[in-house]
Amino acid sequence: MKITAIVSGGMDSATLAYHLIELEHDVELVSFDYGQRHRVELEHAEALSDRLDVPWSLVDLSGLRSLIGGSALTDDTIDVPEGHYAEPSMAKTVVPNRNLIMLSIAAGIAVANDSDRVATGVHAGDHFVYPDCRPTFISAASTAIMLGTDGFAPPGFGVIAPFVHISKADIARIGDELGVPWDETWSCYKGGARHCGLCGTCVERIEAFQIAGVDDPTEYDAMPDLAGLVSTFERIEVDG
Amino acid sequence: MKITAIVSGGMDSATLAYHLIELEHDVELVSFDYGQRHRVELEHAEALSDRLDVPWSLVDLSGLRSLIGGSALTDDTIDVPEGHYAEPSMAKTVVPNRNLIMLSIAAGIAVANDSDRVATGVHAGDHFVYPDCRPTFISAASTAIMLGTDGFAPPGFGVIAPFVHISKADIARIGDELGVPWDETWSCYKGGARHCGLCGTCVERIEAFQIAGVDDPTEYDAMPDLAGLVSTFERIEVDG
Repeated sequence: MKITAIVSGGMDSATLAYHLIELEHDVELVSFDYGQRHRVELEHAEALSDRLDVPWSLVDLSGLRSLIGGSALTDDTIDVPEGHYAEPSMAKTVVPNRNLIMLSIAAGIAVANDSDRVATGVHAGDHFVYPDCRPTFISAASTAIMLGTDGFAPPGFGVIAPFVHISKADIARIGDELGVPWDETWSCYKGGARHCGLCGTCVERIEAFQIAGVDDPTEYDAMPDLAGLVSTFERIEVDG
Repeated sequence: MKITAIVSGGMDSATLAYHLIELEHDVELVSFDYGQRHRVELEHAEALSDRLDVPWSLVDLSGLRSLIGGSALTDDTIDVPEGHYAEPSMAKTVVPNRNLIMLSIAAGIAVANDSDRVATGVHAGDHFVYPDCRPTFISAASTAIMLGTDGFAPPGFGVIAPFVHISKADIARIGDELGVPWDETWSCYKGGARHCGLCGTCVERIEAFQIAGVDDPTEYDAMPDLAGLVSTFERIEVDG
């Protein structure tokens, strides 16, 4: 089957691409420039497509930066919060409705390219902060896309999110088995020369590798005190 | 209530804006440049915001033109089909998933601007050709938007589509009562100096004014033989 996969250049979407290719799908990758501070991730997305020898498209949504404000990811005047991904302060990293915007454009590209599904690498660890990473949202988005393209897309067209019920540590384990080159993936929201090690997504990355028992080749500017932070796993159990 | 309304510059969305203001809502308008051939409609959308003295944002999606192909609206090598809106040939004017793309971006802007709803002017006459104008789609899109912005948007946030169950002739009647300046709206897909009168959306416009018994100030390059075309009304009755 042909699958249009959304990739950011991070470890989740890199693992998603490797996973889909392992399953012998015909994969094309799509990335989005929405004016994010950590635009460096897009270079990693393109490198991923080169390494996997699959097509890659970059969608320019940089004009949205001035229209959809209020997020530390797209507004240089708002500091990127440090700490655990599950902290309330991480709400500052939400870009309103980002995933539906990306899924709907990817679905349009998928229809134009005769693709059978759209894939996203959202996972259970994202559920605390980001409403548009939850299973109920993915299901609703898939239905909207199916109905909105009815008659123009293949049977069963919609969204697949193979990691939506597993943790980032699980993704680290899966990616490690698939040989994902971790040092060619980017997570840090600050988008500096190296991973900062202290922002929410750096902490989550570090924690995921540690919980999974997978070697982390990433060079961080600093290391967080993980013992002082509530782990994603505990939060998932509380959250259900 | 504050409402973010998607406007194309055509008669449906102009009537939508007038209708929302008549109901004393606080309205902001959003338009999309998706590389459409009839980009001239955007000038009419901006003029509408000037006339109503409400904010207007233009979202630049022109980069999608090369990524989402296959539509006569965005590909200069595909002729804009002439005839009735309900003809199968009008499928060539479909831009895959266009409405979900516009609704999802408008929802992001709405959340950033503390708006309570997103509004669209889709109507029952669009249902034949465009799957993303049907009530089931609007309902699913609204649910996806509500879930995707959960915790970041006001209670009841979602999509309103006040014309989704009525015809374009009904819109002509409503707009006429509200004093919509029809000669400042644009429909023609060909995007020439004047309305062509023969493309699907010109035929639909002419037919709507005739059925509604509303004076049509538009200057057309040619007039279609409406007697030879099945009317939207008859089709709606067949379609349910």
